[in-house]
Amino acid sequence: MLHPDITVLAPLLGTWAGAGTGEYPTIEDFAYLETISFAHVGKPFLAYTQRTRHPDTGAPMHSETGYWRVPAPGRLEIVMAQPTGLTEIYEGGIEARDGVVAMDVRSPVVGATSTAKEVTVTERTFELDGDELRYTFRMAAVGQPLQHHLAATLRRTDDGR
Amino acid sequence: MLHPDITVLAPLLGTWAGAGTGEYPTIEDFAYLETISFAHVGKPFLAYTQRTRHPDTGAPMHSETGYWRVPAPGRLEIVMAQPTGLTEIYEGGIEARDGVVAMDVRSPVVGATSTAKEVTVTERTFELDGDELRYTFRMAAVGQPLQHHLAATLRRTDDGR
Repeated sequence: MLHPDITVLAPLLGTWAGAGTGEYPTIEDFAYLETISFAHVGKPFLAYTQRTRHPDTGAPMHSETGYWRVPAPGRLEIVMAQPTGLTEIYEGGIEARDGVVAMDVRSPVVGATSTAKEVTVTERTFELDGDELRYTFRMAAVGQPLQHHLAATLRRTDDGR
Repeated sequence: MLHPDITVLAPLLGTWAGAGTGEYPTIEDFAYLETISFAHVGKPFLAYTQRTRHPDTGAPMHSETGYWRVPAPGRLEIVMAQPTGLTEIYEGGIEARDGVVAMDVRSPVVGATSTAKEVTVTERTFELDGDELRYTFRMAAVGQPLQHHLAATLRRTDDGR
């Protein structure tokens, strides 16, 4: 049974698939296919895994993994690791209204191994509207100011029950 | 095909199961059952997932997830997230000799959400000897100096191929 502290996250449970686009001043624009899964074990967090792949070749692109927590009503924390050698510590808010769940988080510090690229701040916005999950991602990295990097829209493919 | 940069990690691939014990000045000693999995997608990292459960009740205890990298021969980096609201950035060494792979890493900074318990430094040692994987974990947390916390021994249950 889902832990009562994370009832607000229940609509995320399961698997989502869709597509996104990325841009940043230092790279060429790109597109990707994406799969996101949320699972729980009865404790007060969701386990999150994400993978993207190339829309033409299917080759693996990005991936990330972590946990989502609700430390207090209306608050959201996400801790995440990326295979590029980065970790993120997100804090922000979560609001459910008229069947839409809106989440807005910021990682003011990004952890990095000594060989990782420099990323200083990241921000994510998620909007869950029925069977559609949309997000945007902003980052300050490699000397560039905080700005838009990714946007994607996914559809529910499995409710994880 | 496994990326050539992480050939030294190949013996980790698959699933491991075993048991461990934990101790710390601020808590009662405890025991746990554990499963660890390592997977790859052809890129230069392994995806790591771990779960422990209570030896009597089977109830979920700890879990963690992240990525293992070999940024240069003999070097090992591990980035990890924990549902307690923590992230770890490990760096250290990896040495393969006489069929034994010895890994020793330290996370001098532990990331934490504002609601997480204070953990300041963590260290892990792994020893892979054929179908046996042993590790120890040391941490400085909640005002205590760096000291032994966990030790476990796991056996290979699936080679992941």
